[in-house]
Amino acid sequence: MSGKLYAISTGPGAADLITVRGARILGKLDVLYAPAGRKGGDSLALSIVREYLGEHTEVRCCHFPMSADSAEKEVVWEEVARALDAEVQAGKQVGFITLGDAMLFSTWVFLLQRLSHPECVEIVPGVTSFAAIAARAQTPLAMEQQSLAVIACTALESDIRQALAQHDSLVLMKVYGRFARIKALLDDAGLLDCALMMAEATLPGEQCWRQLREVSDDQPLPYFSTILVNKQWERV
Amino acid sequence: MSGKLYAISTGPGAADLITVRGARILGKLDVLYAPAGRKGGDSLALSIVREYLGEHTEVRCCHFPMSADSAEKEVVWEEVARALDAEVQAGKQVGFITLGDAMLFSTWVFLLQRLSHPECVEIVPGVTSFAAIAARAQTPLAMEQQSLAVIACTALESDIRQALAQHDSLVLMKVYGRFARIKALLDDAGLLDCALMMAEATLPGEQCWRQLREVSDDQPLPYFSTILVNKQWERV
Repeated sequence: MSGKLYAISTGPGAADLITVRGARILGKLDVLYAPAGRKGGDSLALSIVREYLGEHTEVRCCHFPMSADSAEKEVVWEEVARALDAEVQAGKQVGFITLGDAMLFSTWVFLLQRLSHPECVEIVPGVTSFAAIAARAQTPLAMEQQSLAVIACTALESDIRQALAQHDSLVLMKVYGRFARIKALLDDAGLLDCALMMAEATLPGEQCWRQLREVSDDQPLPYFSTILVNKQWERV
Repeated sequence: MSGKLYAISTGPGAADLITVRGARILGKLDVLYAPAGRKGGDSLALSIVREYLGEHTEVRCCHFPMSADSAEKEVVWEEVARALDAEVQAGKQVGFITLGDAMLFSTWVFLLQRLSHPECVEIVPGVTSFAAIAARAQTPLAMEQQSLAVIACTALESDIRQALAQHDSLVLMKVYGRFARIKALLDDAGLLDCALMMAEATLPGEQCWRQLREVSDDQPLPYFSTILVNKQWERV
């Protein structure tokens, strides 16, 4: 059997929101690479998939620095990409797990960019955090002719303002540490009353705020906090 | 046991791209409602989930008119919502399946708007068609500070032009019947060479075009055809 690398999306957090395909592949891997936020720290992605892992799968946690220094990050991406290449060349069935969907705001794409044999790669898509948030909040992402923008709150303020003005629905990711600023932008745009915020959707710590006007500017938020804006949604 | 309504996202098309949760719920339903494109026609959503259905699950196909007449559509939404309400009130475990993700461009939200007991509803999110396309094409949706717009090609031309100018990545859905116009807009925006088109991603009829410049304006396309634009993606 020739080697293959699977990039497996875990979905938003609840273990049973992974795809059937992802779960089946996890059961037959020789080795699984799991990203960990801090050196020696736990991997949330690993905790999601643990129940699906085969008995003989070796697990390797890899640490990606959150550093602003892109040279430092590139060294790590290059190292992990070479390690994945080597496993595949050795004929192994290799997995790399990634939170949410592998192709949206994921470290995985920096590895994909650097792999020597993309033809040996299969990417298993996953449920995005914002699809999970829309489901839990019973608030649609977009209907019919509407348009949806997915932006990170780390984007330029002018770009966020423009997107708020132009789209019917918006997903604002990476709110953590930026809530006061985003709340002010939503207020300026007249959108505070059609926005909601969720943290850790589908995980045991899930929280939802539907009245952002009443949320204090210094409200402590979990790392995975996202705002969903839908300008037109209402029950009939 | 009290009645419950599950809106179950099937994912993009391949049966094993449904979530583990969706598959498990399908196995325990009393009744499943499946949307069908044409009256008496087959339901693509039903063909995706058939293998997960319990032996005793009753299947009811419901036809939603594609008509431009919104009064006609509203009558059907109201009828189906009342039927779902009645099943739940009778204590049944009821499913409604929906292609892709239930909260994105789905008829499901028109039913959700009209249900009498949203507290009896659980929405199971799914893999969107565009996440599947990004995975199959090995082309990311967005990285780091980038922004993604998801728009329907039925939107106003001025809105499409604006989105093409402003976002790093774009998903253009509902290309069917509008390819020539969208190709011209992409060309005007200088984006023809960073766009790709996929039809029926993850289904047996999957097709991918990476050189849109060479695709003829009157190329016959399947109904589920989507264009993905990523202005910055390249291998290292």
